[in-house]
Amino acid sequence: MPVNFTPAPPEQLLAIKGVTLGIVEANIRKPGRKDLLVIVLDDGATVAGVFTQNDFCAAPVTVAREHLSTLDSKSSIRALVINTGCANAGTGERGIEDARTTCAETARLLGCASEQILPFSTGVIMEPLPLPKIVTGLPRAINNLAADNWFAASEAIMTTDIVPKAVSRRIALNGTTVTITGIAKGSGMIHPNMATMLGFIATDAAVSNPLLEHMVRHAAAHSFNCITVDGDTSTNDAFILMATGCAAHSPIVDKESREFVQLQDAITGVAVELAQKIVRDGEGATKFITIQVESGKTVEECRKVAYAIARSPLIKTAFFASDPNLGRILAAIGYAGIEALDINKLQLYLDDVLVAENGGRAFAYEEKEGQRVMKQAEITVRVALNRGQAAATVWTCDLSYDYVKINAEYRS
Amino acid sequence: MPVNFTPAPPEQLLAIKGVTLGIVEANIRKPGRKDLLVIVLDDGATVAGVFTQNDFCAAPVTVAREHLSTLDSKSSIRALVINTGCANAGTGERGIEDARTTCAETARLLGCASEQILPFSTGVIMEPLPLPKIVTGLPRAINNLAADNWFAASEAIMTTDIVPKAVSRRIALNGTTVTITGIAKGSGMIHPNMATMLGFIATDAAVSNPLLEHMVRHAAAHSFNCITVDGDTSTNDAFILMATGCAAHSPIVDKESREFVQLQDAITGVAVELAQKIVRDGEGATKFITIQVESGKTVEECRKVAYAIARSPLIKTAFFASDPNLGRILAAIGYAGIEALDINKLQLYLDDVLVAENGGRAFAYEEKEGQRVMKQAEITVRVALNRGQAAATVWTCDLSYDYVKINAEYRS
Repeated sequence: MPVNFTPAPPEQLLAIKGVTLGIVEANIRKPGRKDLLVIVLDDGATVAGVFTQNDFCAAPVTVAREHLSTLDSKSSIRALVINTGCANAGTGERGIEDARTTCAETARLLGCASEQILPFSTGVIMEPLPLPKIVTGLPRAINNLAADNWFAASEAIMTTDIVPKAVSRRIALNGTTVTITGIAKGSGMIHPNMATMLGFIATDAAVSNPLLEHMVRHAAAHSFNCITVDGDTSTNDAFILMATGCAAHSPIVDKESREFVQLQDAITGVAVELAQKIVRDGEGATKFITIQVESGKTVEECRKVAYAIARSPLIKTAFFASDPNLGRILAAIGYAGIEALDINKLQLYLDDVLVAENGGRAFAYEEKEGQRVMKQAEITVRVALNRGQAAATVWTCDLSYDYVKINAEYRS
Repeated sequence: MPVNFTPAPPEQLLAIKGVTLGIVEANIRKPGRKDLLVIVLDDGATVAGVFTQNDFCAAPVTVAREHLSTLDSKSSIRALVINTGCANAGTGERGIEDARTTCAETARLLGCASEQILPFSTGVIMEPLPLPKIVTGLPRAINNLAADNWFAASEAIMTTDIVPKAVSRRIALNGTTVTITGIAKGSGMIHPNMATMLGFIATDAAVSNPLLEHMVRHAAAHSFNCITVDGDTSTNDAFILMATGCAAHSPIVDKESREFVQLQDAITGVAVELAQKIVRDGEGATKFITIQVESGKTVEECRKVAYAIARSPLIKTAFFASDPNLGRILAAIGYAGIEALDINKLQLYLDDVLVAENGGRAFAYEEKEGQRVMKQAEITVRVALNRGQAAATVWTCDLSYDYVKINAEYRS
């Protein structure tokens, strides 16, 4: 069961001026579930995205990248089409054609160019996209378009997710109220590689494209790129940021402006909350683990240590069992591959409990203290490397019987 | 249950002239199990080893490395002391002292110098070595010394292992019969980093020390360094090769000689069999998976692809479920991090079944064929990168409920 995570009430999700969403049951893999979502943007919105670095990236990722890079300044992205049930990855040339046809069909219905459509898919890899079902579903999805459909949209992109993931925030930019709403999906095959799984955040703020590019990278680096469930990087990861410009403020064009920083912080905050929801709903998760590595020489080495801990099946099963078998964490620090690490200088804490220092168990450490923390649903592992000023945080979950069960039975 | 793996009958294990072994129940962690082993070598044996690269390497690893490197040509290693139940890792300065005391005590009993003893430990990390139990056990172990104790020795080094692992071979070197016997332990925290877990191979062949060093590295590279169970590298890994020189042939001193190659091949063969036994007895294993990556540019990139597949929890759970959800393998190839990989050129086979080519599912592939292979207890995944001449093989197992169970309950 998800860790301290219930869905936000639909009424708390705020509409974004310039954005409408349409959802249908297109019967793509299983009947009776919402599996096709169209997000339509008013003309003139700016859109930026980051995508998976997987060489076997899905056909829609290839096409979306292409469309984002070929758009000239005169036209803008008008719609995103997202299906679940089939990843359209590992599908060769036919997969590319299917993604293009999806865009062409959506463009025909909306009266714009194919290049103004971004396609996204998630689901089983190496199976062909059931194109007729998508073509049949699209007009119905467009008939369903409404501004207050964010909750249904967050449901429509779920696969093994148990809880839909959506967040809204409102901030004042120099006196003008600006709204941000984001949705994300993801539960397994979660390991960052520029961006993880599907995330879509929209705002009615007005932001120039270069600045929006900057914001999407900044937000991804501090949110979706700081989580792992199982160390598997998806073929379909994408994180898209949309700014409709419908709010009544002058467009943000200066990276040094106060408004830029405020908006970027708010968007990053929404992205962090969505990313943490993905971990809380990680496949089989029973615990939410924060791993903080501090006083390292570089952020890179702090991330290496944090990920060595976050990926270790031995540590993850110990969390599941609430067993303070914390030597396993020392072992992971030891194989993280840190240049000239002095193990006698570092400290390991479990929440506020000092567990290890001077190369071994801390003198005052008592197992019952470790046991107390390990029983919690939320645990912070803190490693002080004591050799520099850098730090990094990674969020992960434990490894339970249910992870095996979910992934053994995924396609059945 | 271990995959196609029952213990070798004790009578098939061959004694090695110049080697005796003593085993006792020293009550180190749990009563009623053999947990202390002493291997005694006649004077004049050559010994070489490879050890874990983990920064948090165990105290006995530090001391064993030291003793191997400080021995001058006049004295030789006389004994190995191995305990289970406690890894003596993450134990700081006290751990080093405990390992030294273990050596000193053994040396006193055998009438040699401390530096002629190599210590090894395996078990729980970050708990102090119960030195009094070891000191009490040592004289009893030495009383128990016998040449035909190899099977009991293979039992004495088990931790979460279900089946003891031991292999013997006999070869003729230029008319002289030479014998090789090896034992190994390991089931979880298995991922190569120069050497994996504990392995001890002895032969009565006569080999000079530089050549034995070469052999131990060669054997490790082709055996223990080609396996993974869970991607966790141990703090205590060690693989030791001992040559007593008791067989009646002239010492091997030439790396170009036929005898060198024959002996190295035979020792590597024993190491491969032991390494495969570790995987067959991998924690919770129900399948034995061979991953062959071929026609790569370098061995390194072939190993990267093989390990990306071998480490993926998603792929390992699909094997457990006998589910041909083979797109997950494409995803792992895609995130292996291969420079300029052309996914349209590679081919993926499951045993003899061509699953994917041209960037997607192979035209002739039928799911029922994949299903047939996935149901087997032994499966070969073969990836042809079609961009060079290099190849690499990795052995691994699936990820089952029992892996979680074993590791959640390890200390209880």
